[in-house]
Amino acid sequence: MRQNKMILPTLREVPKEAEITSHRLMLRAGIIRQLASGIYTYLPLGYRVLKKVERIVREEMERAGAQELLFSALQPAELWHETGRWDDYGPELVRLKDRHQRDFVLGPTHEEVITSLVKQEISSYKKLPVTLFQIQTKYRDERRPRFGVMRAREFVMKDAYSFHTSWDDLDVTYKTMYRAYSNIFTRLGMFFRPVEANAGAIGGEGENHEFMAMAAVGEDTVAVCSHCDYAANLEKAEAAETPAAGLQPSDEIPVMEKLHTPDTKTIDQLVAALGVEASAFLKTLVYLADGKPVVAIVRGDHEINEAKLKDLLEATTLEMANDTTIERTLGAPVGFIGPVGLKGVTIVIDKSAAAVANGITGANETDTHIRNVVVGRDFTPDRVADIRNVVEGDKCPNCTEGTLEFHRGIECGHIFKLGTKYSSKIGATYLDENQKAQDIIMGCYGIGISRCLAAVIEQNNDEGGIIWPLSVAPFHVHVIPVNVKDEAQMSIADNLYRRLQAQGIEVLIDDRDERPGVKFKDSDLIGIPLRVTVGKRAGEGIVEFKVRKTGESTEVSIEQAFEEITGLVLGQ
Amino acid sequence: MRQNKMILPTLREVPKEAEITSHRLMLRAGIIRQLASGIYTYLPLGYRVLKKVERIVREEMERAGAQELLFSALQPAELWHETGRWDDYGPELVRLKDRHQRDFVLGPTHEEVITSLVKQEISSYKKLPVTLFQIQTKYRDERRPRFGVMRAREFVMKDAYSFHTSWDDLDVTYKTMYRAYSNIFTRLGMFFRPVEANAGAIGGEGENHEFMAMAAVGEDTVAVCSHCDYAANLEKAEAAETPAAGLQPSDEIPVMEKLHTPDTKTIDQLVAALGVEASAFLKTLVYLADGKPVVAIVRGDHEINEAKLKDLLEATTLEMANDTTIERTLGAPVGFIGPVGLKGVTIVIDKSAAAVANGITGANETDTHIRNVVVGRDFTPDRVADIRNVVEGDKCPNCTEGTLEFHRGIECGHIFKLGTKYSSKIGATYLDENQKAQDIIMGCYGIGISRCLAAVIEQNNDEGGIIWPLSVAPFHVHVIPVNVKDEAQMSIADNLYRRLQAQGIEVLIDDRDERPGVKFKDSDLIGIPLRVTVGKRAGEGIVEFKVRKTGESTEVSIEQAFEEITGLVLGQ
Repeated sequence: MRQNKMILPTLREVPKEAEITSHRLMLRAGIIRQLASGIYTYLPLGYRVLKKVERIVREEMERAGAQELLFSALQPAELWHETGRWDDYGPELVRLKDRHQRDFVLGPTHEEVITSLVKQEISSYKKLPVTLFQIQTKYRDERRPRFGVMRAREFVMKDAYSFHTSWDDLDVTYKTMYRAYSNIFTRLGMFFRPVEANAGAIGGEGENHEFMAMAAVGEDTVAVCSHCDYAANLEKAEAAETPAAGLQPSDEIPVMEKLHTPDTKTIDQLVAALGVEASAFLKTLVYLADGKPVVAIVRGDHEINEAKLKDLLEATTLEMANDTTIERTLGAPVGFIGPVGLKGVTIVIDKSAAAVANGITGANETDTHIRNVVVGRDFTPDRVADIRNVVEGDKCPNCTEGTLEFHRGIECGHIFKLGTKYSSKIGATYLDENQKAQDIIMGCYGIGISRCLAAVIEQNNDEGGIIWPLSVAPFHVHVIPVNVKDEAQMSIADNLYRRLQAQGIEVLIDDRDERPGVKFKDSDLIGIPLRVTVGKRAGEGIVEFKVRKTGESTEVSIEQAFEEITGLVLGQ
Repeated sequence: MRQNKMILPTLREVPKEAEITSHRLMLRAGIIRQLASGIYTYLPLGYRVLKKVERIVREEMERAGAQELLFSALQPAELWHETGRWDDYGPELVRLKDRHQRDFVLGPTHEEVITSLVKQEISSYKKLPVTLFQIQTKYRDERRPRFGVMRAREFVMKDAYSFHTSWDDLDVTYKTMYRAYSNIFTRLGMFFRPVEANAGAIGGEGENHEFMAMAAVGEDTVAVCSHCDYAANLEKAEAAETPAAGLQPSDEIPVMEKLHTPDTKTIDQLVAALGVEASAFLKTLVYLADGKPVVAIVRGDHEINEAKLKDLLEATTLEMANDTTIERTLGAPVGFIGPVGLKGVTIVIDKSAAAVANGITGANETDTHIRNVVVGRDFTPDRVADIRNVVEGDKCPNCTEGTLEFHRGIECGHIFKLGTKYSSKIGATYLDENQKAQDIIMGCYGIGISRCLAAVIEQNNDEGGIIWPLSVAPFHVHVIPVNVKDEAQMSIADNLYRRLQAQGIEVLIDDRDERPGVKFKDSDLIGIPLRVTVGKRAGEGIVEFKVRKTGESTEVSIEQAFEEITGLVLGQ
């Protein structure tokens, strides 16, 4: 393509609204433009990359035996009522009414729709297993869209769904998809890691893995073992058993004692006031699980993990109780809540907190705490479970030798064993060998196509701009005649441009009448992997060949440049 | 692909809801399924065709120099307020609010968005002309979705927009697009006709053409000259001048005379009651143009053309006045309205009606008409213009020799010279050679991608099912082993399947354990152009080769079948 008439508006200044590198570079390199908060236009350069990512995903999905189809983005609300997600999904679900006042959603995902299709079209075990996928526009009304296409409200996803007669059979497809995903992210040039994850709004009964592009700007924290291959999203990472520290059977148990702690509500304030380690406190939090109050206790130096608590309680919704609710329900002042003496409320305590001897808690009285609180003697929890976030340095839950380290990741893919969560509600059954109706067992598999662009850029850039991997680069080669008014240069550049294109190589030729500095800066910014500069020595048959990634630049003959490029591109 | 595990649910029965052939066949052949009224799922077979149509469109657009990008479907309402279309577009525009109660539309078209982009990104004449296109999902909340994907509420469109410094330059691109469209519809295997058209909701100041797939079920009437190449949508077709029939200057002019016509309100009733030709009546209709009453008169044997009337009045909205409004505004009873004596209302009369001598009209009194009404003597119209539909047999407005014939067409493409309609409202200007700001002159160019599937099927089918043109067929070849339990047959079929695939030929192999009758019926229904039946003589190396379109079937050697197929497919 010829750059002069291409809509490729590069920017010198760093756009103010962009907080992270990939967002800045996608704006500066003329990849995207924002139309509204979280809503983007893909300019020609960006759309070329998007299509390449789509093609790689499509090829690997087809290789894995999946069949492509296309659903609508509009979905009738009835299906979402059937699964209960109309109520459960919350304000991120885009809802609208048609001209006849019928309710619709703009699909954030398609479990309802595909399960309903399979219910209609598949009746026998003979037609199973089957895997279907689509590449399609999705909608999620993020409260705070940010980081460009990383967290957008309209975005492109690949979503796949598989249908099975048994969990074993699901396991086979799950492994196939796991491999396909590994192939995809490898081909996209990503440094990624599959990690154990929490199922979130998609739900399901079985295991699930996120494919994380490792990057400092990632919104997810990944806990990785220093020794074995354990890796899990912080939401999911299990806390290893904490050895009970504290009292021995032979120890005398001190009695509880009230402490006057005026205006001392936070753990930090208590640590300062009492001169005790944070780990000695039993931090007491109040939630509403499906509207019912629940008291959750973790150690003062730990953070609660709401996903774990929600799963434990099998709650559909879980939210922190506000001050009014706390005071009305528990009859106790916020900041001084504790489990001792509480009645008529479920108490859940984290395992590590349960192992604390002589804990300090709120006394349920203003400006008062209690010390020497002993779990079992002074209050009886309803549940003792893992409800905290792991912390760096925790023992690995998988091996005995390693400890957990934290890294940041961008969730680019997510695969789920759904089981019968959707099929049972929508009534998608098959007849087995004995003509008996059984719920279909399902898996689902997503990739955030547009998000992958941002992830690739986060991992492949330098101070000059983007460094596209060859597999997804908008063009393979950038041919730059230094002076377009020099007829010899232009004719040599143009000739090379045509010869390379004839080989099926994608070439951008910078035929703009701009200063060389501008051209080279733009070229670095848009990050095409290979560059040929046709300059002063062109008349002698000599051009400059440069690899964007290494920055290596060599003077070669036009023939050598041609050979080098065809070798690299066609051999990839 | 292997048919046994493919989601390809064919139906024997004709689905009740489907009124036209293409809709019936798309359901029966497992191409689409309805999810909600006007909202469809493309099953794997259908999606393959959709992608092929997209590819042909993309190739021809790129060949015509257009750059592809991708806009969002969600568009902020502000842009639609700027152009006034938020109010003008009516209930077909899908509107919604986000979680912050901000208004959005789901785009039926993207003039606002692209004009706003070009306003931001292009400032100089040096960057013009440029043509941009996208292939994207569009929304139109049809009052009565029907005919399957022909008139759907969510559908796939290619929309392109061009930007120019002059009308002459727009004309060059318009012609290029006209040619590209002709190439596209030719490659899709369509019998089509470009026709002059009305610009409708897109608007614009210049000429526009629809590309019509000619088919009896088409919703548009196309008037075609029997002699020259004139062709126009009925909405647009001009009425040739009608020679003034009736009075000569020397004739005595009879005076007006009232007729008692009890309960005689329609032209048919009047013709029967008075024994006069319908063409002698001046049919008088009352409209509200932007809320103001307008009386429109056409000959009794003619139909009014509301598009022409609306254009003539330069009205944003035009609707028929209801009975209450008519009686309140004109003080006259519905069914007996006429122009004589009306005051304070605009009267528009069609040229043919103005040429009637001794006309009969309503008398603005119950049960009364008047005869011998003479235009100019008895009432004075404000405008005399072409405001009627042409009728078959009318003289061609383009040549002197032909007469108009009517045919039906499906609008598959539409190209427009928009001029500055959008750029002036959105403020998209460029600086000319003298650094003076000028409104950008625009064109726009749409193709209903999903509608093309229906149009191709309407034109390519027989009683057995679809007959896909090779260019858009979901597969090129259908290989049918008659008996999958016969190992020799299966192995020969499988071998041919693999060999053809290795050539890049798309093959569906019917590996289902079904009776031959079922397989052949399904094969005819889904309409793959070439078929190889591997049956009893397979052991001798003989198979049956059949062309779906001609029904011709020959016994050939496997080698001959292979040669024949590769020749046809790769040579296309």
